[in-house]
Amino acid sequence: MNDLADRVLRGELRALSRALTLLERGSPDAGSVMEQLDPHTGRGYTVGITGPPGVGKSTLVDRLAEHLRAQGLTVGILAVDPTSPFTGGALLGDRIRMQRHYLDEGVFIRSVATRGQSGGLPRIVKSMVRVLDAAGKDVVLVETVGVGQTELGIMGVADSVVVTMTPESGDSIQTLKAGVMEIADLYVINKADRDGANQLATAVVGTLQMADLSDGWNPQVLLTQAYANVGINELWDSIGAHRSYLTDSGGLQKRRGERRRTEFLETVQEELHRRITKRLSDDAGLRTLLEKIEEKAAEPYAEAMRLLDDDAGIAGVMN
Amino acid sequence: MNDLADRVLRGELRALSRALTLLERGSPDAGSVMEQLDPHTGRGYTVGITGPPGVGKSTLVDRLAEHLRAQGLTVGILAVDPTSPFTGGALLGDRIRMQRHYLDEGVFIRSVATRGQSGGLPRIVKSMVRVLDAAGKDVVLVETVGVGQTELGIMGVADSVVVTMTPESGDSIQTLKAGVMEIADLYVINKADRDGANQLATAVVGTLQMADLSDGWNPQVLLTQAYANVGINELWDSIGAHRSYLTDSGGLQKRRGERRRTEFLETVQEELHRRITKRLSDDAGLRTLLEKIEEKAAEPYAEAMRLLDDDAGIAGVMN
Repeated sequence: MNDLADRVLRGELRALSRALTLLERGSPDAGSVMEQLDPHTGRGYTVGITGPPGVGKSTLVDRLAEHLRAQGLTVGILAVDPTSPFTGGALLGDRIRMQRHYLDEGVFIRSVATRGQSGGLPRIVKSMVRVLDAAGKDVVLVETVGVGQTELGIMGVADSVVVTMTPESGDSIQTLKAGVMEIADLYVINKADRDGANQLATAVVGTLQMADLSDGWNPQVLLTQAYANVGINELWDSIGAHRSYLTDSGGLQKRRGERRRTEFLETVQEELHRRITKRLSDDAGLRTLLEKIEEKAAEPYAEAMRLLDDDAGIAGVMN
Repeated sequence: MNDLADRVLRGELRALSRALTLLERGSPDAGSVMEQLDPHTGRGYTVGITGPPGVGKSTLVDRLAEHLRAQGLTVGILAVDPTSPFTGGALLGDRIRMQRHYLDEGVFIRSVATRGQSGGLPRIVKSMVRVLDAAGKDVVLVETVGVGQTELGIMGVADSVVVTMTPESGDSIQTLKAGVMEIADLYVINKADRDGANQLATAVVGTLQMADLSDGWNPQVLLTQAYANVGINELWDSIGAHRSYLTDSGGLQKRRGERRRTEFLETVQEELHRRITKRLSDDAGLRTLLEKIEEKAAEPYAEAMRLLDDDAGIAGVMN
């Protein structure tokens, strides 16, 4: 038994941190750790919390974690922060607020920076969720910022997806229609003490009734005031109802199987990308080609196809 | 001279459509067409219009196109629509409204569906912009939906980026801070007849003053009512001012060179992904591996690394 994997399975926090770092760095050791941990996954439950900036997702996650701790459950939090392409830093802002948990060994918090321009959820989050699960966390909360397409990635990570909005996000219904409706298992209207909360709830319910949600689960719409700790019990109960529904219908096993498949495919793609990027910085011939492309002495599309179709080119990228 | 490329350069609309379709389908003929067209690019100017759903981007693009036509300029419009991962269809909604242009040969409109979960701007848009440029369009308008990270892709496509918001999008300032400020050359506050427009404009100006925008251009903040055709002249004048600034400072050439470089890199990556996906559906051994991964008889991360490190595996993917 790999010593690190063993320590993760015993719930040691430093080992847990170290395993997540191996994944983030793409370390050659990560594969064997993941293989050791994998048979011990499947007990934890993953909840995705998503929504546009400013709706109070962090506060909601914070309150939910407190509620779970009061029930004796252990919690892992993965906070996916958009990275600025210029500064390279994650927007940790109110993450600092969550330091109140730092003294509680039952809550493990990790920020994950998104890289590049895709705006999607990093593939690595799927692997990280499995590490937290193997480490014995009863519930893993994954918090992501997103609107429309950006939110879709959370569907590939979480067992239950909570889409959060506020009465103030004026275009909520239009956003709903733009794909969010297809991923949400639960809707939370936070800051529910503000004007328009009930109207928004009615509008969401109405939009849901018009939609043909044929998978058998009727998404619930909840009102919360996370800051004042209002509606958190009800939220957790609704997540529990969705979990029971998924377990009984066989949907949970199906979701998790699909997630593993996607994790494999995405890992292949990201690792290929990493290797190509490395080759491009190491290989003088390719660097010259890039310069020619920039200076319009070569055409980007055709040169890309040429690199892929040329055996030597590809073999060079791969090895 | 390739006949299709020749006809695109003469501005034939059917040839233009056909060339864009070759790119979309990843046709083996696309490379040679792109190489023929490339030397004739660089005359057109590309403007990206982005912002969250519901701010009136389509109306703004529509009005801008009318304004440009009245000055005798030809216009290409690429409308990037988020695709639902379930229905597969683009949200063409108000695209229909733009049919008024269909009788005008000087306006060419194409919808581009985004695929997959990345939420990013499809790589193919960069190549498409170059086709429209080669076909003689004076101005190419690229319309994308996005908030935060999703919007960043537009920076890699457009010479000038216009970020659109409304007084009603309550979290505009927070969204600004989450990366948008780094990509916007111009800000448009649309629906400026509604409550809060001037306050929002003041807040945006204030946020810009606090930021250290060291590249020398001071992003302008404009008020428009696209529906009533108010502020469109001023918007075009401001785009012109930014164009002059970029041209004089050398920034335009720099942006375009970087864009070509990125187009090459993204094309390599997407084409690799397409080939891997194809191999996974054609190869019985890999299909069996995927089933084992789903059923937890194999671990996704370690198997991905194994496929990449195994010479036979990679050679198989590539050829």
